[in-house]
Amino acid sequence: MRKLAAGIDIGGTNTALGLVDRDGRTVATACMSTTDHPVLDDYINMLCTTVGRLLAEAGTDAEFAGIGIGAPSANYYNGTIENAANLPWRGVIPIVERIKARFAGVPVVVTNDANAAAIGEMVYGGARGMRDFMLVTLGTGVGSGFVAGGRLIYGHDSFAGELGHIIVMPGGRDCGCGRRGCLETYASAVGIRRTVHELIGNEIMPSVLRSVPFSELTAKMISEAAEEGDPLALAAFEETGEMLGIALANAVAITSPEAIFLFGGLAHAGELIFEPTRRYMEENMLFLYKDKVKLLPSGIDEGRAAILGASALVWDSVNG
Amino acid sequence: MRKLAAGIDIGGTNTALGLVDRDGRTVATACMSTTDHPVLDDYINMLCTTVGRLLAEAGTDAEFAGIGIGAPSANYYNGTIENAANLPWRGVIPIVERIKARFAGVPVVVTNDANAAAIGEMVYGGARGMRDFMLVTLGTGVGSGFVAGGRLIYGHDSFAGELGHIIVMPGGRDCGCGRRGCLETYASAVGIRRTVHELIGNEIMPSVLRSVPFSELTAKMISEAAEEGDPLALAAFEETGEMLGIALANAVAITSPEAIFLFGGLAHAGELIFEPTRRYMEENMLFLYKDKVKLLPSGIDEGRAAILGASALVWDSVNG
Repeated sequence: MRKLAAGIDIGGTNTALGLVDRDGRTVATACMSTTDHPVLDDYINMLCTTVGRLLAEAGTDAEFAGIGIGAPSANYYNGTIENAANLPWRGVIPIVERIKARFAGVPVVVTNDANAAAIGEMVYGGARGMRDFMLVTLGTGVGSGFVAGGRLIYGHDSFAGELGHIIVMPGGRDCGCGRRGCLETYASAVGIRRTVHELIGNEIMPSVLRSVPFSELTAKMISEAAEEGDPLALAAFEETGEMLGIALANAVAITSPEAIFLFGGLAHAGELIFEPTRRYMEENMLFLYKDKVKLLPSGIDEGRAAILGASALVWDSVNG
Repeated sequence: MRKLAAGIDIGGTNTALGLVDRDGRTVATACMSTTDHPVLDDYINMLCTTVGRLLAEAGTDAEFAGIGIGAPSANYYNGTIENAANLPWRGVIPIVERIKARFAGVPVVVTNDANAAAIGEMVYGGARGMRDFMLVTLGTGVGSGFVAGGRLIYGHDSFAGELGHIIVMPGGRDCGCGRRGCLETYASAVGIRRTVHELIGNEIMPSVLRSVPFSELTAKMISEAAEEGDPLALAAFEETGEMLGIALANAVAITSPEAIFLFGGLAHAGELIFEPTRRYMEENMLFLYKDKVKLLPSGIDEGRAAILGASALVWDSVNG
């Protein structure tokens, strides 16, 4: 019988669902609104009904292996979502308990999006067979998941892996977390926009980006300008790679991974971001680790990554 | 029958040996020279003979559980000591294989000193019952061992946990590793001596340390001056705590430990170093982790720590 896991990605706007087999093949998918259900009970009902419908679609030869959930502010140990700023429900949500009540006897696991992406990479992607690696998501912010000895590092409270809030520049840029100089103020999609505007202020090199206001500037516009040889856009990638490379070199000294996967948003810029990041990482790395750590793009198709990552939690929890 | 593990600490000058029971009681100890045996075979012979003698001393009611070894540049996975700068033997030494040939059927494990100290803390010390913590050794250099989910993080190549070579000050102090700004150039026994001399150059505050040349200055002299209220010595502890606190706050964002243990050398200065380190750590910590992470002195008696840590490897490897 074919085993299938449900992957659920709870985002601020939409919730994506899918049934996935052990090899990462997506059998059925669905999408529902997150915001349309301000009452938690209604949301859970809709979620479970949708999972049930997908299972029915999958047919009678499928065995249900469990449900994995990727969500912001998720506590893996407690099976809860805790005070998520961008979800409609306040306080601590016992999401695992609530879903288990509807699907008795199957494992239900929740973790945050970056951890789910790391486990997805390990189960289906470029980290198959690796026991020590890290995955860094370069989106609006910077997220990360660390795997050591084949197991995700959750830490004492389940909130390990906040590489985006390593301080890379003491007294540096103002961060939404209330501190200054966090990696994500430099090495995220928002960070590179900030870098472009700082360069516009500090440098006199010409750039098509000088005519774009901050509010309209996107990371994609910066990539496109850099691909055309725009010197300011290229300088912005250089600086972004420098900050990210230094932070990665420091993280390597703690967990000594076989590989680092870059995922999402900025990672799409390809060598524009990989080349300077790799160069500064090697330049700043302790001799013990030099030329050993692979810097790789994620091996997971980004369109399916959220569902795949969430579903991978099931196979990982069964094996672990 | 009483189970006993042998702990062996291989230092640049001496090798300390001891038999230890599961509760951390030392049954018998010995010490031999490391440097007197430039030929590896002679050293291994002497080492194994000494272990045999200790076992004979322990009597016939003891069961031999295995041998744990703490050594510089140790590779846990391969059971080797690799190109240790301060040991008499060049190249890669298959220490585990060589010792196993003499003690057939018992586990033999090697790791570096800081990792052994971390496992010692977990098996016998203040980290008993903890699954996520880190231990930082503040000696001539800065070493560290990270435990996540009850297991030491060895990383891909067994060389994880080099907190001393996190760059805390880009472009900062020259480090023996060939880079600049590493934590150990600030937060070690040597680092605080450098800080004192930098302060002597930069500040005009009076200090008894102004009459001490760098080559004669010790961390203990700085502690003693600080305890007498010497303003420059106090400023040196303040700066040391700041660098260490910032580095710990960043490390916490990766592994989210329950506690951080400070061990050795500088840690003996007590609140002189703990108070500023704790203050700067909290000040620089992401809100998620604030007021959660305990900063503690090691719970292991320092005089016995090297042997205890090494012997703990045996109990840890039996359990893990």
